[in-house]
Amino acid sequence: MPAEAPLTRETILNAAEQVLRRYGPEKTSVVDIAKFLQVSHGSLYRHFPSKAALREAVTERWLYNSILLPLQAVAEKREGSAESRLRSWFETLISHKRTYAAEEPEMFAMYAAVTLEAEELIKVHVDGLVGQIRSILEYGVETAEFRPGDEASRARALFLGTSSFHHPAHAPEWKDPEIDKAFDAVWQLLLSGLR
Amino acid sequence: MPAEAPLTRETILNAAEQVLRRYGPEKTSVVDIAKFLQVSHGSLYRHFPSKAALREAVTERWLYNSILLPLQAVAEKREGSAESRLRSWFETLISHKRTYAAEEPEMFAMYAAVTLEAEELIKVHVDGLVGQIRSILEYGVETAEFRPGDEASRARALFLGTSSFHHPAHAPEWKDPEIDKAFDAVWQLLLSGLR
Repeated sequence: MPAEAPLTRETILNAAEQVLRRYGPEKTSVVDIAKFLQVSHGSLYRHFPSKAALREAVTERWLYNSILLPLQAVAEKREGSAESRLRSWFETLISHKRTYAAEEPEMFAMYAAVTLEAEELIKVHVDGLVGQIRSILEYGVETAEFRPGDEASRARALFLGTSSFHHPAHAPEWKDPEIDKAFDAVWQLLLSGLR
Repeated sequence: MPAEAPLTRETILNAAEQVLRRYGPEKTSVVDIAKFLQVSHGSLYRHFPSKAALREAVTERWLYNSILLPLQAVAEKREGSAESRLRSWFETLISHKRTYAAEEPEMFAMYAAVTLEAEELIKVHVDGLVGQIRSILEYGVETAEFRPGDEASRARALFLGTSSFHHPAHAPEWKDPEIDKAFDAVWQLLLSGLR
């Protein structure tokens, strides 16, 4: 990239993601990203005050584009029963997480680290996901598939009750060949509580 | 301890636990433990081939004495309904984990690290816990509180469905003032599946 182009937040994030994917979150420095952009690292610090801030911004964008947006589409589908939409939403979440853990290990490792460091960012992300579950629950109450209750609390309970299958700290367990059977057993118990 | 006393596995584990509690799992070396025991580190290696093996043995003993044994007593109590025994078993598990995370941070950090490294050890521990849940479920089926089903699979599902509240990777979330309410919401959903 020629140094004369305007250095936007978007330009920096694109470069940072490429460099992070190549070297991994531990080995990448702000200087590496500045070199890649052919700018001084001082000009990066004007946009991001620290390496941590840059990592968090890259993770935030990745979570939004790779997890929240595709799931939003599933949550908004107005076809099929609420139960099948809910199941499909969770299967999409779980399969996306497993795919990223296996195929984008550098991004996934960074996301797992940021989960521990950037509470507020993760809280916003989880609230977004829980909001999507809630909208499916509300649809299920409308269609009388689910009994009415405190939808916000039940949506969070479904998210927490399935953490073993989507929280990044559990990624080593996802290689277990029995994992889908285990998810199904948890799912059957949780679902009984909605009907 | 005088160097002449016989160097048993038990003696080494007692010393290792004391040293690990004092310095933490990262800073403790096999040499530190040997110095504490006033023996050569060669004589320690005859019992434990590596620092990792020693850490794992200390964690294994701690998990057994501090988690599995006290829970066994709760699982074997033959009083009250199966539901109240099951709830009491989970509350004991959760409160023990929270207490250790807060009050024995060095042992807890080591346990969290070993969880990632020593799959077989953790598998045996989890199987022990799941076996206890299963015995309570079987009691509940006998008393007709719970409907019959695949108790082994449901026991594991209850364990996995509550991971957010007892798996060490989730410890940072346990400070949330809403955590007990969140557990109760998950509990109500899971329990519906047993009745």
